[in-house]
Amino acid sequence: MQYENIVKEIKNKESFLCIGLDTDINKIPKHLLKYQNPILEFNKQIIDATKDICIAYKPNVAFYEVLGENYWPTLKKTIEYIPKNILTLADAKRGDMGNSAKMYAKAFFEELNVDGLTLQPYQGKDALNAFLDYQNKWSIVLGLTSNSGSEDFQFIERNSKPLYRTIMEKCMEWGTKENLMFVIGGTHEIELETIRTFCPEHFLLIPGVGHQGGNFDKIVSAGLTSDCGLIISSSRKIIYASDGKDFAEKAREEALKLRSKMKIVLNQRN
Amino acid sequence: MQYENIVKEIKNKESFLCIGLDTDINKIPKHLLKYQNPILEFNKQIIDATKDICIAYKPNVAFYEVLGENYWPTLKKTIEYIPKNILTLADAKRGDMGNSAKMYAKAFFEELNVDGLTLQPYQGKDALNAFLDYQNKWSIVLGLTSNSGSEDFQFIERNSKPLYRTIMEKCMEWGTKENLMFVIGGTHEIELETIRTFCPEHFLLIPGVGHQGGNFDKIVSAGLTSDCGLIISSSRKIIYASDGKDFAEKAREEALKLRSKMKIVLNQRN
Repeated sequence: MQYENIVKEIKNKESFLCIGLDTDINKIPKHLLKYQNPILEFNKQIIDATKDICIAYKPNVAFYEVLGENYWPTLKKTIEYIPKNILTLADAKRGDMGNSAKMYAKAFFEELNVDGLTLQPYQGKDALNAFLDYQNKWSIVLGLTSNSGSEDFQFIERNSKPLYRTIMEKCMEWGTKENLMFVIGGTHEIELETIRTFCPEHFLLIPGVGHQGGNFDKIVSAGLTSDCGLIISSSRKIIYASDGKDFAEKAREEALKLRSKMKIVLNQRN
Repeated sequence: MQYENIVKEIKNKESFLCIGLDTDINKIPKHLLKYQNPILEFNKQIIDATKDICIAYKPNVAFYEVLGENYWPTLKKTIEYIPKNILTLADAKRGDMGNSAKMYAKAFFEELNVDGLTLQPYQGKDALNAFLDYQNKWSIVLGLTSNSGSEDFQFIERNSKPLYRTIMEKCMEWGTKENLMFVIGGTHEIELETIRTFCPEHFLLIPGVGHQGGNFDKIVSAGLTSDCGLIISSSRKIIYASDGKDFAEKAREEALKLRSKMKIVLNQRN
């Protein structure tokens, strides 16, 4: 999907909401277990209930790979079920060099045919080029993650710049705002302001706003650009809003709460 | 597999060779294409021809994930075909936080049931703990990789220590030589000497000795410990030694060349 189409979709829907499909067989409503593929059924009902108010779905690939031989079929059918105007982002955090990177790129961008893929930066340029080479596909590189372990290495300084900034600045030499986004954890609102000084235009994918405690208002105030520039992702808080037969309806209610806040800030900016 | 069993296997076989199963449908001999699963057939014949002279197999997961719905079945049947005394290492380079990390650990250590998994360090402690928590399984963290992109971030210095050293030292606080190895690219022989000053005991998985140009003698001279401490991995140079009907036989010949060098240095040390 092209940059302009994402911006258009955000304007049309007055939303920059991404719904994380971290679908766990142990957390979905029990009445779905009678289906041949309960996880796919859950995803379909969540998608049906929310597709008019979100602009992206982000399946967390770990939750699918654990299914073994059902991994690929379940994920592929989920991706196929998502309407074409909505971004499909595989939260796969893949990373490898040269030829192996090409294989991962082919797997996700061709076989699975998602619009974007989260990526590990540690192996540098030749680990990212294979993904950046694709037209109208998105490489979403880990910048500053939302977990406690982000403190371990991501703030290591060189020339007064933390590692995540060094990585982001280098990546911005290799990719453009048309094919490169960054993951910035919603728990790092303070850093987001600085991030926008050296990364003013790229879309940022922001998880961690729901359960992990990221503050919506602060993130928006620090991160919003004239093209929006933010994709805020919420997973558990939306998809597990209820564990009863009303799960999809309750997921929609929860998504609407976030979307109504998004609508307000988007209108304020215009 | 336990540390002691790896050491025993190395002594028994007089080998510390790992064979990388980077099996590519476009590179395997044409006569195998008649099989229902040519990649699995190729792997089986390579395993049959080399299992008495190597101590580990390392399927590169990228080459399997690109198969889509055949990914998991092909990789699982390959793992199942490998004799239990031989280490199975999934070169998956996975990495994610908390709950997602647990899912990946379950996928690889339980569903696929490999002995070890290569891992990304960028997200820090909680991204690795889920793997380190397993008994008799190996977390193999990327230290210094063999690709050109390793120069981009892995040498960033803090307190005169390059990033890869900071990462390795931290990881050594979280894991032990009984559950933690590191990937050190065979193209970094010079750094290997320093690595052994701060990481004297952990097993190091060394790819990049074949096609990528790492020097066997220098690696062994810098990296060998009293328990060997090295697992040298070669992929393409062995498995694609011939593209004819004699591919398995030629792979064995190529593996024997490396193993005979290993035999000499192991005997010199004892």
